[in-house]
Amino acid sequence: MAAETQTPPIHFGIIGCADIARKVSRAISLAPNAVLSAVASRSIEKASLFAKANKFPPEAKIYGSYEALLDDPDIDAVYLPLPTSLHVKWAVVVAQKKKHLLMEKPVALNVAEFDVIVKACEENGVQFMDGTMWVHNLRTAKMREFLSDSERFGQLRAIHSCFSFAGDPDFLKNDIRVKPDLDGLGALGDAGWYCVRSILWANDYELPKTVVALHGPVLNEAGVVLSCGASLHWDDGRLATFFCSFLSNLTMDITAIGTKGTLNLHDFIIPFQDKEASFIVNSKCFFNELVTSWEPIPSEHTVTTDIPQEVCMVREFSRLVGDVKNGSKPESKWPIISRKTQLILDTVKMSIEKGFVPIEIKS
Amino acid sequence: MAAETQTPPIHFGIIGCADIARKVSRAISLAPNAVLSAVASRSIEKASLFAKANKFPPEAKIYGSYEALLDDPDIDAVYLPLPTSLHVKWAVVVAQKKKHLLMEKPVALNVAEFDVIVKACEENGVQFMDGTMWVHNLRTAKMREFLSDSERFGQLRAIHSCFSFAGDPDFLKNDIRVKPDLDGLGALGDAGWYCVRSILWANDYELPKTVVALHGPVLNEAGVVLSCGASLHWDDGRLATFFCSFLSNLTMDITAIGTKGTLNLHDFIIPFQDKEASFIVNSKCFFNELVTSWEPIPSEHTVTTDIPQEVCMVREFSRLVGDVKNGSKPESKWPIISRKTQLILDTVKMSIEKGFVPIEIKS
Repeated sequence: MAAETQTPPIHFGIIGCADIARKVSRAISLAPNAVLSAVASRSIEKASLFAKANKFPPEAKIYGSYEALLDDPDIDAVYLPLPTSLHVKWAVVVAQKKKHLLMEKPVALNVAEFDVIVKACEENGVQFMDGTMWVHNLRTAKMREFLSDSERFGQLRAIHSCFSFAGDPDFLKNDIRVKPDLDGLGALGDAGWYCVRSILWANDYELPKTVVALHGPVLNEAGVVLSCGASLHWDDGRLATFFCSFLSNLTMDITAIGTKGTLNLHDFIIPFQDKEASFIVNSKCFFNELVTSWEPIPSEHTVTTDIPQEVCMVREFSRLVGDVKNGSKPESKWPIISRKTQLILDTVKMSIEKGFVPIEIKS
Repeated sequence: MAAETQTPPIHFGIIGCADIARKVSRAISLAPNAVLSAVASRSIEKASLFAKANKFPPEAKIYGSYEALLDDPDIDAVYLPLPTSLHVKWAVVVAQKKKHLLMEKPVALNVAEFDVIVKACEENGVQFMDGTMWVHNLRTAKMREFLSDSERFGQLRAIHSCFSFAGDPDFLKNDIRVKPDLDGLGALGDAGWYCVRSILWANDYELPKTVVALHGPVLNEAGVVLSCGASLHWDDGRLATFFCSFLSNLTMDITAIGTKGTLNLHDFIIPFQDKEASFIVNSKCFFNELVTSWEPIPSEHTVTTDIPQEVCMVREFSRLVGDVKNGSKPESKWPIISRKTQLILDTVKMSIEKGFVPIEIKS
């Protein structure tokens, strides 16, 4: 904490007034090492309304163009929640303007675009992080401890991950996430991103050898995925499956099964409650003598926190930006795991397009 | 209940002293309309020890051959927990001897054998039921109510089911469930049976159009499945996936996702506790305004019961046998759902053997 207090807080500008930017605005204002400094929209009225509605400090600047915000020398870092199709263009400009980049997910429409973004960040020495919040939850660190415990969990053998929500008719007709020219990856990019990240996370970010899309994805008339699934395979027999959908009730499940333990949770992306989050640990459970009940029964572990996961994310990103400002190199972990996530999405999409064939992953 | 008290209790004989027969013996003795009347083993000593260890009543008969038990005119019904490869031979004899048949699962090694068994039951007018206990749990009826509720659950869109347990080295080397000449379906027949049944159950027993095995099943040297998975597909886009394994920690999950609700449980085959069983209902949950928590949060429903599920199974089977003895036709529901389960297992096996191709279901 000593280092944090010595480093001045990181000044954030937000480009685009997406819904998700409301939550991240609050997170920036709550993070101890970040300041909400500016917002830009193509319409200055929209930017102004957004700043008021989201309690920006009075000294925050309101811009009517993205370029103007990016030319502001007081801005250290940019949060970019634009539609995915605009990411590559604006992320490159952000990096060229030497602003650090907190990027909403999915990062890009494909790995080729992703690499353009991260190359620009590397060339300009700025920190990159994608906006996947749940990995920053304190609960996630506690779950990681369980998965890493060779006695309680053993070796991972299988994981199933699911994120679905039921878009209403307006969403399914008009939301940017069903438009090929805006968020062309549809449910795969929006919901599947989280599933894939959770699978990689449980596998210590080791890429699978092969990815196979499940038959029967649902696409809209424009060819955007509304619902799909895939299986992922590692050489040692480890298996992952996921299901993502805009057409099914809100569900956020992880079931990770090791040789000695199982992890379950039902709210991995957005915890049920702000201040606490739980997961179920089943470790070395078996049956009573007549196989009519379990001994012991699985236990629920609850992690309490005053700091919501999105604030943890902003705090960690700001800490890394502060380190860079103090002369450190950007932390490469975040673009690396982000790229792996994007790579799996590409591969699932390719498997769908090629008729559900297995695709080998080349990292 | 009036009919039950008028009908004399059903006299059960057990053929084979498998481990699972201990639990079913207790269930027969606890069921109000059943009597534990005889046990047969190829060794009369083994049968005698089994009867003592499992508290058979003193008047119960001990047989040193299956044939002798089947010739006993006092026996109404037979519980058959022999290795699967012996099922077709002995089930046919049971039916020919006009004994009703409660059959341990998997019922047969394939649908062709299954049909021989059920044909024999039909020709001899005896009731058939397989030994899948969880469908008889009171909880299952409560879960059915939820899945059938068009307001709370809506239409089923996706279900994932998993049953795994970690066999120890002795199990993986010596258990009948890893021997091609005994339980040749391995984990698919033993564990996958439950997953497939749960998927059919959630789909009101409507068969899928297509079944595709997941890549990467694990087989032992003799070619018996130790771990595998599959996806099942219906014409309207409904999707099911399952995973079954002898190589992963004890896990028994169902996640069933409808358009308006989600059902979760983690102990669907053997409830955590004898006297109560729970499931999680997530219905019309969504997020708070800033998308940092859920409103409402899912709720846990607990069903208390004094009657364990295996006793419910014996009671229901005995009730049907009593009806047949009173002149009714055997209830065809049980062989029908049993055959559908067997058919899916066949199809998964065929998909594995053919290189994970989609197989159309022909009922």
